Order: sequence, then structure tokens, then C-alpha cells
Amino acid sequence: MSEYVRNAWYMAAWAEEVPQGGFLARKLLDKPWLIWREGDGRWVMVADRCPHRFVPLSMGRFADGRITCGYHGLTFDGSGACIHNPFGNPLPATARLGICPVVEAHGGLWFWPGDPAMADPALVPDFSFIDAGPPVGRSRYVMEVNYELIADNLLDLSHAEFLHVESFGTNGSLFSHGNQTVETDATGAIWNKWDTAGAPPPGWSMPLVGEGQTVDQSLHMRWHAPANLALFIRMARAGTGGQDLIIPPIANPHILTPETQGSTHYFFTHEPGPEAEALARRVFLEEDEPMISAQAAAMGETDFWDMRPLVLASDAGAIRARRRLMQMRRAETGGK
Amino acid sequence: MSEYVRNAWYMAAWAEEVPQGGFLARKLLDKPWLIWREGDGRWVMVADRCPHRFVPLSMGRFADGRITCGYHGLTFDGSGACIHNPFGNPLPATARLGICPVVEAHGGLWFWPGDPAMADPALVPDFSFIDAGPPVGRSRYVMEVNYELIADNLLDLSHAEFLHVESFGTNGSLFSHGNQTVETDATGAIWNKWDTAGAPPPGWSMPLVGEGQTVDQSLHMRWHAPANLALFIRMARAGTGGQDLIIPPIANPHILTPETQGSTHYFFTHEPGPEAEALARRVFLEEDEPMISAQAAAMGETDFWDMRPLVLASDAGAIRARRRLMQMRRAETGGK
Amino acid sequence: MSEYVRNAWYMAAWAEEVPQGGFLARKLLDKPWLIWREGDGRWVMVADRCPHRFVPLSMGRFADGRITCGYHGLTFDGSGACIHNPFGNPLPATARLGICPVVEAHGGLWFWPGDPAMADPALVPDFSFIDAGPPVGRSRYVMEVNYELIADNLLDLSHAEFLHVESFGTNGSLFSHGNQTVETDATGAIWNKWDTAGAPPPGWSMPLVGEGQTVDQSLHMRWHAPANLALFIRMARAGTGGQDLIIPPIANPHILTPETQGSTHYFFTHEPGPEAEALARRVFLEEDEPMISAQAAAMGETDFWDMRPLVLASDAGAIRARRRLMQMRRAETGGK
Repeated sequence: MSEYVRNAWYMAAWAEEVPQGGFLARKLLDKPWLIWREGDGRWVMVADRCPHRFVPLSMGRFADGRITCGYHGLTFDGSGACIHNPFGNPLPATARLGICPVVEAHGGLWFWPGDPAMADPALVPDFSFIDAGPPVGRSRYVMEVNYELIADNLLDLSHAEFLHVESFGTNGSLFSHGNQTVETDATGAIWNKWDTAGAPPPGWSMPLVGEGQTVDQSLHMRWHAPANLALFIRMARAGTGGQDLIIPPIANPHILTPETQGSTHYFFTHEPGPEAEALARRVFLEEDEPMISAQAAAMGETDFWDMRPLVLASDAGAIRARRRLMQMRRAETGGK
Repeated sequence: MSEYVRNAWYMAAWAEEVPQGGFLARKLLDKPWLIWREGDGRWVMVADRCPHRFVPLSMGRFADGRITCGYHGLTFDGSGACIHNPFGNPLPATARLGICPVVEAHGGLWFWPGDPAMADPALVPDFSFIDAGPPVGRSRYVMEVNYELIADNLLDLSHAEFLHVESFGTNGSLFSHGNQTVETDATGAIWNKWDTAGAPPPGWSMPLVGEGQTVDQSLHMRWHAPANLALFIRMARAGTGGQDLIIPPIANPHILTPETQGSTHYFFTHEPGPEAEALARRVFLEEDEPMISAQAAAMGETDFWDMRPLVLASDAGAIRARRRLMQMRRAETGGK
Repeated sequence: MSEYVRNAWYMAAWAEEVPQGGFLARKLLDKPWLIWREGDGRWVMVADRCPHRFVPLSMGRFADGRITCGYHGLTFDGSGACIHNPFGNPLPATARLGICPVVEAHGGLWFWPGDPAMADPALVPDFSFIDAGPPVGRSRYVMEVNYELIADNLLDLSHAEFLHVESFGTNGSLFSHGNQTVETDATGAIWNKWDTAGAPPPGWSMPLVGEGQTVDQSLHMRWHAPANLALFIRMARAGTGGQDLIIPPIANPHILTPETQGSTHYFFTHEPGPEAEALARRVFLEEDEPMISAQAAAMGETDFWDMRPLVLASDAGAIRARRRLMQMRRAETGGK
């Protein structure tokens, strides 16, 4: 598996996942972390591993911004410093927990696992549509595959015509009436855009459109490295220049953060309520994950490119994103 | 584990395992394959892996001898050629599925994983006794051990005196009245023959023999590389030159095809009906497999010969078969 | 993981674990062994692996000090010699089972996996307090972690103040009134001694002490290589020179024998009866093992010292024991 890109913002959690007055323990990029909010409102993120016997500090006790190890009582604060040693002996400078910059934006907590000096909050990808839109439920799901395989999946939505036939496939209109373009914007985001013109509407929207009517639809997927994606959907009556909308524009985050090389935190939103969450989860669980898991099983430990994949026209966006990640990795590791 | 011998016929399935108008997906020699019958009656075998994203094609849709990938819609025919690409771009010559020669013989489908030019159907081992005999049930069982360990087991039937005491042991007559010979015949098959003369009959046959009578029995096991075995049993009243048979001669296939290095498709026959199948399976499951699995666990990743096994007289057949496989491997790999 | 020290006594079992007229099969130091008592009272220990096909002999039949393989009938005696070969051919000198010196002492069966010439029974650590004390139940529990991690745990009892708060913590008196000393005695044992003077009594002993009274307590842990530990506890009224005992002195074995590098036979005693055993087991299962397992998971395959652990004053005993083991390993392997 490839090294993680480190100088980038990843999402650790939705802010509301951290309990009031408590902490959240989560594995991110193969390492265990604790996240809590200090009394002054700042978020902190410290390694969930005692430097004495390496046990998770999350098995200990937390109060007032201090975590006490449940094995031998070393106590640490949100700066990572050891502020109490029951045995009294002076401790070396290494008696600290690793820390990570963390900022709150668009409902999420974002961390920067690389050089803290480079952790500019202005570089957090723009998911302001979450704040700006109608109220949504924010959820997380762990998909047991590598994050790059999920990004590949999202960056080529044409798979919906086969894998999601039963849910949100478009009856083949991507092929009959569609056009794909791949672009990189000024923020560095890569866009994979499918636009259909004058096509029959997808099944779920037929009642809204009217018999015999056709639509113009856009399915635009945006990718920010390492794997923070957003989907923008518009559907208008055909020939109205995209103005006579059939449904309000939709924007959905698909934010992917590696838990390990073989599992991914998948952050998503949905209409409020547990039923809408269950419905969204069902598509992931029953349609995407079995296919991507089968792909992962077939690949085993072999690198994606070493598998010599056949390249289709529709892969243009996903391949551009994979190349970007490779360039970032090379820049960080000096060629490895 | 040792490489598989590739220039040889292995059995993939009983023909009736492939559903009418459908396909069979099966892992063979560590690779996933699809088998189906073309409209003209020919059998085909293609790799069950899409060259685009490596997912099993068996997760897609099959109709009229064409399989469509369930992820992005590439469609292949029984020659392995890609006959439809929804995205239209021309595909390179590598956009093909691997294929394997496959022939039907004696109720089974046989494949040749090596050089297709060498795949002579006349080399399929002779199991015509299956067709010629009374109707039988044909079944398959996956035993979770390496195929060579099962062949060792079958090529030394003396284990029945200890492991199958409760089922078809011979009350020790192999040792008291038996003679073992090992031969290689003109077809290249290795035979391990146990013959007993003037011995008390095995328990299950006592009612047929008569009190105080003795029998001549032959238990002849035939092995064709890589691991296609057949057992031939005869039992006659002692001293009749093997002519006064107590039961009709019995012939049973024990055809072993590696699923992986640690699991084996075991093809066998039995009297028709589910009860007879369950009885045969029970001996495999409760008597052979626990012992062979314990052997496999004890060996771990170590090669059989590197374990420096003690050699008994009764091992002559199994060792000759292991040597043959080693020679075949060397011939194919040039020494590895 | 580090090599096992071989020239040392390890405990294999409590003597009563071996059934009368039968044998005990147990994995010790990654190898399977059989233990039985000969007719003349001597204990024997032979490898539980047939040299023919490597299956466990414990799957065969045992009678009169002879074990017959359940696969092909080779029979061995307690000296490891093959005394019957059903196939008659002469066997080479390698047709023997490995054996190990084993002696009974203090209720346990002790084995020496190294050079038999060095296996001096006088070197078995002194656990005579088990025989001398009141009747106890003797039990065994397999903890799914490396034995050195458990020894670390035992050699620093201060963890009781955090991990065993609910059971036998001492309300922090180790820190407020305690003194730790580490000693090596004439037998080579390493002692980690915690002594408290004039401290409030632990909760469980309050009813015995009287309101407002204080106690002097000693918690002395003794370690003999490789991992045979004993805990000695005394509690007396404060200021009586340790003479006015509140409870009779307690001595408990904590004898650790590797089953594998990742699992340990933990031999312990308790008041007679299944309830007392369940209570003792509960502390292991619910308090120690989750923490030590979390430590093992955090360490993965990395060596303890390569983890660069922070060293606390209380680690002095455990570190001295780890160093001793390293020296013994180096002496045996010549530096590895």
C-alpha cells in the first residue's frame, strides 16, 4: 500500500461526535488519537498511546482536559505534556504525547498529520454548502476498503448505470445523452463532470417531469486531495439552459479519511432522521461496498498500477486524482 | 508451498454443476474462473476477473454466452474478447480475459492451465468406469488442506486400519495377510496395490461371506498426475483365483483439484441419493479431514521434505507420486 | 519476538492436570508435548508429533505408557523410542520423539527445554509455600499475551492503584506512604518490594483494623527466570515492627509459561472451590488481560526496547528482570 500523504487536511470527525466534557477516541491513518475540546473552545488532538507501556489512554480517566493512564497513572494535558507522574522521578523530554493541528470547519473537525507549520486553515476544502443548506443529518460509516478505491468509485459515477440500477441509475442516459469532462479548478480540486442533455429522466424523478418530457442533468463530482469529495447535482427541464429546475440543486459531501490502509471513515450527510440515514447506509453497504471489497480482495497486496488496469475513457478523473496523490507523495518522501 | 504443475488436466467440476443457461464460478489453482456452455455445445472457461477494476465478472449479468461486468459494464464473450465498452474508446489488445482449454469427459469438465498447444484431450485420465457402471451420485467437497496431503493419504490405504477402524478398516488383515506393490503403468499412472490372501473378511462383509470363511481382497489405488486418483476394490472367496466374487467389483474416483494451496476440491461418487452422499461426506469430514488438517497445521509453511519425514515401507506409492510431481515442476520451471 | 531462554525450568502443568492412566497434551514454548506418568512413578514428556506425517500423537491411542499414532500406527514409549512399526521395515535412528527432562515439585511439573545435562532439579524455584500452607485450589488460565508483558505487570504492583481500584487497590498509599526497593538474592531471584508504613488500610481490610488505625504493609514480588513469580503479602498494625499481623501472611504463585509468543499459561492458586477460582480468574480476565492485550496490540511485532518506552522509577524491578533474560538469551545464542 502507498504511504499516506501527510501535508493535507483530513476530516477526523463531525464535531458532534465528540461528547460534551469528554473525548473521542478514533484510529486515523493507522494511529490511535484522542480528540477533545478545551475549556476555552480550542480543539486538541493527542496520541491515544501512553509513552510508558503504549496502552490506549482512552482506557483511563478523563476530566477537565486531562487524561490519566489506566495502567500506571501518568497524566497528560491537551498540549501532550505529562503533568503528573505518580512515581516522582523526573521524566525526559520524550515524555510527551504526539499532537496534531485540528480545526473545525463546515461541521467537521479537520486534522493535518504532516508539518504543523504548513497547516493553514484556509486550505480546508470548502464544504460550506453543508452549513448553508437545509438542515441535514451528518453520519459516518466505516467501509472496509482502501480509501483510494472508494475515491475511484466516486470519481466515475457511470458505475451507477450498472451498480445502482435499482437505486439511482439513470437508465443509460449517461451513455446515450451524456458528455464527460474533467477539469482542475483554481483551488486545485479535480472535477469529473457528467452532463446529459435532452435525456429521459431517471425513474425516481418521472412523476416530477411529466410524460414524454426530457431533462438536462449534471452530476459533478469534486475531489480535493487526499480524498475529500463533494457531489453536485442539478436537473432542469431540457432546453431551459439549466434554469427551469425540477428539483432544488443537491450537494453532498463524500469525505473519506483512512482509518487504516484497508478501512475508511466515510463521512456523509442525508435528510434528517434515522430512516434517511439507514437508506443512505444501505446503498453503501449493499451496492458499493460488496463490489469495492471484491476489488480489494482481487488486488490483495498488489499496487493498483502494478495490476496493469485497463483504462477506460471514464477513468480520466480518477486517474488524474491518483496522479496528484502520487506527486504529493513523491514531494513528501523524495521519490518513494 | 510448491508451484502447481500446469501442463496437465485437472477436473474443474462435474458437468451438471454448471446451471443450464448460466455459468459456474469457481476458484481453481488460486485463480477465479467462469465456466459455461456455448450455444453450440462447446465448453468455455474464462477468467472471472474484469481487466478494468479486477472485480469478479460473476457479480455481473450473464446472458447468451456474454458476461457483463456489474461495476462499469464491460462485456466479454466466451473467447475472452471484450465485445462491448459503454464508454466507446478503443481498447488495447490487453482488454481480454484469460481463457483455458476445457473438455468434458467421464462426467467431468477438465481444464489445462498450462500451454494450450499441449492440451491433448486423449491425455485426460481414464475414468470411463463412471460412465460404464451403475448410476451414481457425483459430488464435490472442499477439504481445507493441500491436495498433496490428501493424495498421500489415498496412496497409503493402510491408514484405514487406524483412522477408519469404525468404518471400513480391515481388522489388521493388511498387516497379517497383506502384500503391497507399487507399479507404474503404460499411461504413466502410479499404482499402489494392497492385496490380501486368505484373510478374515472385513466386518461389514461378514454376513456375505459365511462363518469361518476367508477372502482374497485387492485394494488398488491409481494415481494420475497431478492428483487424479481412482480406487479399485475386489473381494473374492479365498483360493478361487479372485474369480468367485463376494461383491461386484467397485471403482471410485477420488479426483483432487487445488482450490488454493490450502484447500482442495475433492470430487467423488456414491450410491445415488442424499443419504449415501452424506455418509461418504461423513468419512471425509470426521475421519480424514481432522487428521490431515492436524498434519497441515503441524507443517505450517514448511515444505514436506524439509520436515524430514520418517519413511515407512507403505509410503512407496506416495513418494513415487511426489517425485513425479517434482520432476514435472522442474521441467516446467527449469529447476525451481 | 525474542527467542525463549532454554536452559531453565518452566512449569508445564499442575500434577493433577494429568489424568490417571492417561496423558496431558499441551503446547509449551510453541511446541506440542505429551506428559504422562510411568508405572514406576517417573514423569515423562515426549513430543506430541509423529515423525512420519507430523500429526499429533494425542489424536491416537494411549495405554500402558505407549502411544500409538492414529494415522498409520507407529507406537512410541516414554523414552521417545518407536517400539512398533506395523510395516516392518527397519527404521533409522531418527525414528524417535523428542523428550524433555521433567520433575515434580511443589505440586507442579517442571520441564527443562534446553541441554538435559544442565537440568538440575535443585534449580527449580522454591514454591514450597504451596505445600506448606493451607490447602489451596490450583488452577491455570491462558492469557493471550506474551509472558514478558505479564511479568512486567506483576513486577510493578503499583498498577493496582489504577487498574485494580475496584478490587485490591490500596487507595494510593503506595505513593503517599510507600517505598520501593529492588534486590537480587542469593538464588538469583529478583525482588521488587513495596513497603508502606503507617498508612490507612486498603478498603477490604478496614473491618479488621479498627477505625482510625493505620497499618504497615509489604507487597513483595519475587521473580525467577524465565517468568516464575511469587507474591508475598504481610499486613501488620503500624509501629509493631511488622509483628502484630492483621491477617496471616499470604504467598501466591504467579507462574508464567509461554504457550506461544503471544499466549501464556498462567498458573495460580486460590482458596479451594470453584467460586474462589472464578473470582481470581475474573481479576485476570476483566482487569489485567484487557490492559495487557491492548499493550500487545499497540506493540504489534515491534520489540519492547525498539518501542523506546518511557522509564518510570517503578520499572526498576521489571527492567532488571528483562535484562537478566537478555543476558541469558545472549549466553545461549551467542549474541542474537
